[in-house]
Amino acid sequence: MKKPILIIVFLTLWIGFSTARELRSPDGNLFLKFTVESDGTPIYSLKYKDMTVIAPSSMGFELAKTEAGLSSLHNGFSIVSHSIGSFDETWEPVWGEEKQIRNRYNEMTVTLRQEETGRIMDIKFRLFDDGLGFRYEFPEQPGLVYFVIGEELTRFAMAGDHTAFWIPGDYDTQEYDYTTSRLSEIRHLSEAEITKQPHASQTPFSPTGVQTALQMKTEDGLYINIHEAALVNYSCMYLDLDDENFVFTSHLVPDAQGYKGYMQTPCTTPWRTVIVSDDARDILASRLTLNLNEPCKLEDTSWIRPIKYMGVWWEMITGMSTWSYTDDFLSVQLGHTDYLSARPNGRHGANTDNVIKYIDFAADNGFDAVLVEGWNIGWEDWSGHSKDYVFDFITPYPDFDLELIRDYAASKGIEMMMHHETSSSVRNYERHLDKAYRFMADNGYRSVKSGYVGDIIPRGEHHYGQWMVNHYLHAVEKAAGYKIMVNAHEAVRPTGLCRTYPNLIGNESARGTEFQAFGGNKPNHTTVLPFTRLIGGPMDYTPGIFEMDISRYNPDNHSRSNTTIANQLSLYVTMYSPLQMAADIPETYARFPDAFRFIRDVAVDWEESRYIEAEPGQYVTIARKEKDGERWFAGSTNGAEGRTSVMPLDYLEPGITYLATVYSDTPESDYRTNPQAYIIKEYIVNEKSVLEQYCAPGGGYAVSIIPYNGNTKGYKKLK
Amino acid sequence: MKKPILIIVFLTLWIGFSTARELRSPDGNLFLKFTVESDGTPIYSLKYKDMTVIAPSSMGFELAKTEAGLSSLHNGFSIVSHSIGSFDETWEPVWGEEKQIRNRYNEMTVTLRQEETGRIMDIKFRLFDDGLGFRYEFPEQPGLVYFVIGEELTRFAMAGDHTAFWIPGDYDTQEYDYTTSRLSEIRHLSEAEITKQPHASQTPFSPTGVQTALQMKTEDGLYINIHEAALVNYSCMYLDLDDENFVFTSHLVPDAQGYKGYMQTPCTTPWRTVIVSDDARDILASRLTLNLNEPCKLEDTSWIRPIKYMGVWWEMITGMSTWSYTDDFLSVQLGHTDYLSARPNGRHGANTDNVIKYIDFAADNGFDAVLVEGWNIGWEDWSGHSKDYVFDFITPYPDFDLELIRDYAASKGIEMMMHHETSSSVRNYERHLDKAYRFMADNGYRSVKSGYVGDIIPRGEHHYGQWMVNHYLHAVEKAAGYKIMVNAHEAVRPTGLCRTYPNLIGNESARGTEFQAFGGNKPNHTTVLPFTRLIGGPMDYTPGIFEMDISRYNPDNHSRSNTTIANQLSLYVTMYSPLQMAADIPETYARFPDAFRFIRDVAVDWEESRYIEAEPGQYVTIARKEKDGERWFAGSTNGAEGRTSVMPLDYLEPGITYLATVYSDTPESDYRTNPQAYIIKEYIVNEKSVLEQYCAPGGGYAVSIIPYNGNTKGYKKLK
Repeated sequence: MKKPILIIVFLTLWIGFSTARELRSPDGNLFLKFTVESDGTPIYSLKYKDMTVIAPSSMGFELAKTEAGLSSLHNGFSIVSHSIGSFDETWEPVWGEEKQIRNRYNEMTVTLRQEETGRIMDIKFRLFDDGLGFRYEFPEQPGLVYFVIGEELTRFAMAGDHTAFWIPGDYDTQEYDYTTSRLSEIRHLSEAEITKQPHASQTPFSPTGVQTALQMKTEDGLYINIHEAALVNYSCMYLDLDDENFVFTSHLVPDAQGYKGYMQTPCTTPWRTVIVSDDARDILASRLTLNLNEPCKLEDTSWIRPIKYMGVWWEMITGMSTWSYTDDFLSVQLGHTDYLSARPNGRHGANTDNVIKYIDFAADNGFDAVLVEGWNIGWEDWSGHSKDYVFDFITPYPDFDLELIRDYAASKGIEMMMHHETSSSVRNYERHLDKAYRFMADNGYRSVKSGYVGDIIPRGEHHYGQWMVNHYLHAVEKAAGYKIMVNAHEAVRPTGLCRTYPNLIGNESARGTEFQAFGGNKPNHTTVLPFTRLIGGPMDYTPGIFEMDISRYNPDNHSRSNTTIANQLSLYVTMYSPLQMAADIPETYARFPDAFRFIRDVAVDWEESRYIEAEPGQYVTIARKEKDGERWFAGSTNGAEGRTSVMPLDYLEPGITYLATVYSDTPESDYRTNPQAYIIKEYIVNEKSVLEQYCAPGGGYAVSIIPYNGNTKGYKKLK
Repeated sequence: MKKPILIIVFLTLWIGFSTARELRSPDGNLFLKFTVESDGTPIYSLKYKDMTVIAPSSMGFELAKTEAGLSSLHNGFSIVSHSIGSFDETWEPVWGEEKQIRNRYNEMTVTLRQEETGRIMDIKFRLFDDGLGFRYEFPEQPGLVYFVIGEELTRFAMAGDHTAFWIPGDYDTQEYDYTTSRLSEIRHLSEAEITKQPHASQTPFSPTGVQTALQMKTEDGLYINIHEAALVNYSCMYLDLDDENFVFTSHLVPDAQGYKGYMQTPCTTPWRTVIVSDDARDILASRLTLNLNEPCKLEDTSWIRPIKYMGVWWEMITGMSTWSYTDDFLSVQLGHTDYLSARPNGRHGANTDNVIKYIDFAADNGFDAVLVEGWNIGWEDWSGHSKDYVFDFITPYPDFDLELIRDYAASKGIEMMMHHETSSSVRNYERHLDKAYRFMADNGYRSVKSGYVGDIIPRGEHHYGQWMVNHYLHAVEKAAGYKIMVNAHEAVRPTGLCRTYPNLIGNESARGTEFQAFGGNKPNHTTVLPFTRLIGGPMDYTPGIFEMDISRYNPDNHSRSNTTIANQLSLYVTMYSPLQMAADIPETYARFPDAFRFIRDVAVDWEESRYIEAEPGQYVTIARKEKDGERWFAGSTNGAEGRTSVMPLDYLEPGITYLATVYSDTPESDYRTNPQAYIIKEYIVNEKSVLEQYCAPGGGYAVSIIPYNGNTKGYKKLK
């Protein structure tokens, strides 16, 4: 990766007598002010075009287990110095929504000294045109070498009772449905969300706690998004709301003893981010989170590339088949339980014949890979018992002929994707990690879907505390040593670390498609995710469900997928991920070959992206050009209300004729009553064309736009 | 290993109407009675020659986190069946106090059913001539698959206010001085012991809590020793005393959440052991703990052998030199801290020249190995801060030329012994374990001294809870894969697991010689350890201190080693270990070459052992014959009072003449005033000889007895 432009200008100012420090974004629209109050509390505020984004808000920490001196690290400060600079570079991600990313900001670092203790704390602010990032930095110093965080006390004071798109704060799950409400309504809506559905591991902490990325909209039409970037060896940040004053305070995930973070100077916190615009599309277009992460640390990235895959998965999620091989066992003790003499239950998904079927279908349709869950012994007894030695990650079931499958897949040009469910027994996983990765490398697996279902072992630790945050990155770093790409489910929601470790090819870390078989997702779910979950990085959402009636797979399962088929197709464009799954089963796709064609065609890596329409919770329309190619793909994902999307095709190369294939809802489509109605139309288009397209409730559309040199007769033209 | 004798006779009795079940030891001296009380509480009692060893005592568990049903697993039981059998075999340990060990017992298994829940629990009793072992066994059953132990409720009711040799119960340290007192005195003596000296990690739990192996003596002269055998994946057992009734109840080490153990059926607890005799020597001669462990699990043990070693160690313990290389750093972050440009502090022990000196001295004196502590980066900042990434176990300091030292040692026939201080950052150690062992194997290291100083990470876990018990064995099992022997310090005290894993060549796990430089050990310390700590397995006590005035090494250290030189020599025989260190520095040994000769000569593996005199806290006299040789070595370790030891040499082969070299105290020797006075005498002896030898306070003697064909003129004879 080259860095085409790089300009750094630093001006260091030493001003001891004034307490206010100010910074503007490169375009001047964002204005940051930093002061220290009379009691030495650091205070920052942020405005966008004279509208208040963050009202004056205090900063700092409460320390725990301090041996001597104050536990407060949030007041008693004075400004020692500050420095200002600017930065502008353009860098190329290994994969992404665009081939080149500009990273331009003005920066201010304020050095504070706590007079009573002599402790030095720096706060570094970076103002981009699309938002603010700031973090705390602790230089090495005799008075502050090791410290334990009792709580981070970063406040985000809102200027009003904004509309928020939120899920409840929870130390162990992120898989809630989003609620749209005023800030003042969170308290009385939260419990219903928390109790609506049991989660395998669930630890809510406050009736006004919410997760980030948190998307908000003000009455003035300002879009504010709070999240964090570069979460490394630190606990995940939640926000707890003072709902009388609309002030959020950071709330970190505690460890088993209630502490929030073990720190050793020199060190920094992750970046706290506030993306802001008066145009919702700018939130989606923001690269602020990636830009606040460190450049790629891997020397060789040639082995990393996007993947389109199928999987032996949906049939287990729906209950049509099982991960487990037998029903014989009361419980399993690996190494002692005798699988060879166990009776197969007859419903084991990961059997060789079934896997071959998926490989054939995937190969016939141009996919890269096939995931198989339930291939390895232990699934009869894997969850819910705080079991330590739950999987060994290398021993296949008797009916999964790993060598045969490996060789057959290779002969068809298909890669097998590994599956490592850890059952959250993390010590056990780390003990097996080298052997498991080595096994993958030896058998040609180049990517792994890992999972962390259930309560964490070491017991008392939480999914999103410092311990586990450290683990998830450890697994990614170690995987890089084996040239393995990681797609971690139930891991902490991403914070742009894929810039630094591009083998972190995906995460789940939100409510995914699987919940369509567990009671359903709200119909506007995927119009919220791009503003929330995807702010930190790609999601392995696993779209492509064509059969919305789950009872067709499992008569006992009466859940429904709350989308139309056209909506499902749109997600391959609107829910950016370098890892895209066709999640339904081959038999279902065979029923809808014309609709399936879009999934076959759509690219998974992009030259550029255009954000056409966006309103959180209502609709998202995006067009993207494939990387190193001329094809465009567009998608419009619609919420619960029918609407007409308008997409000017002005992003197309002038003077070129394209064939646009539009996969859309019909006027009769509706996620509730008629989810499988769709229509496919072809148009001859150019850069002057405008697509006006009806989107049904829970619907949407997808479009492929391909340069066309053929006969245009018989094709319709868009106006 | 052959099993020369093996007789098993099982009689299964189905008696539903009587509740009392009885068992006798093979020699008939021990009598066990088991009943179920009217409320269904299991009760056992034990007699020795009609003297009460264990008065009727209840058994069972309190369960935690039970989803349904009773939390009690200690009453409501009835006897379903019981079976009785006997067993007799002789097996050969890879190393040990004798070449062949007889394992003979009568066994009774009682199957209990808890009527209200249907739960089945077996209790298996094994009666040896020298004591009792019993354990709980949980068959696989639908009503009891996974369970969490709230507390084990095994009681040991004493028949009186016995004299006990005890250290306070503590979840994180075993390194206390022993107190000799009545049971009724423990409560008011315990706190003084706990607060006498700070420990790097210390968690006492009760004013009447004590550790096992617990040695007691009754007023009738009965010696009772309570411990456990085969502690695998279960928390260490302490004893908490009801000091009004003299009833001990088991107390397990909790995890970070307060739970005592996660169990999955089928499973068993460790064996609870009661060794008993009216002759204290029988306690030392007991092989009950080893016999209750599983046979060796390693197929190839040819690479395991005893080791006599020296070490760059005592000079750091005394403060003469340092583990750390530099004083430059406020703290260390491995990978970021620049050691190459740091200023050496000039006192780093593990520098190449110094190590070469030890290698030369060790080679000149017939040692097998040299340990070097402080060879690897990180020691400037390794303890006390709950630091996660504290060592990498493979990177030497700039002044430790690992390749040169490795090659030089090999050229002199000396093996280097690895040192892995983990700082109790156990996740970090496990993450590095494979690489660290591989590094050892690549560089010819075949044994490792590991350490667990400070509070455990994962934080909240304790040194002796199930989590860490699991870890210690994990490290030993993994080491076996690399043909590495393990000597783990601060690990849980042993329970005979070296039978199953003979590469567990040693443990510290009690107050070792190092405390002679930290304020001193009681002068009778090593007359207690054979009855307590050594019941479970060998201790790396690191004897051989010849300079008792620590200020000779470090003017600021005014500690004294509370022994005489002759006492130090005796320990090589009385404190059995296949791993024996000459702990003092070469310069000191050079001052006493004639006394040092015993350390050069003494064997470290044994054909047979004779327990000549023994009284806990007062004296221990043992003679041992080297394995596959004709030499005998004897030692008498004395307590605080001067006495004369009498040792008939009737164990010698009749008709053979031996030269006995006696290294003893002088009449003027005294650990307080004259610890370095010793005398060496040679005698011609045979099987009719009797050695009467004065032992000074804190003194003792050592004897080598070697077949002699030379001229006997000029040699004294023993009467």
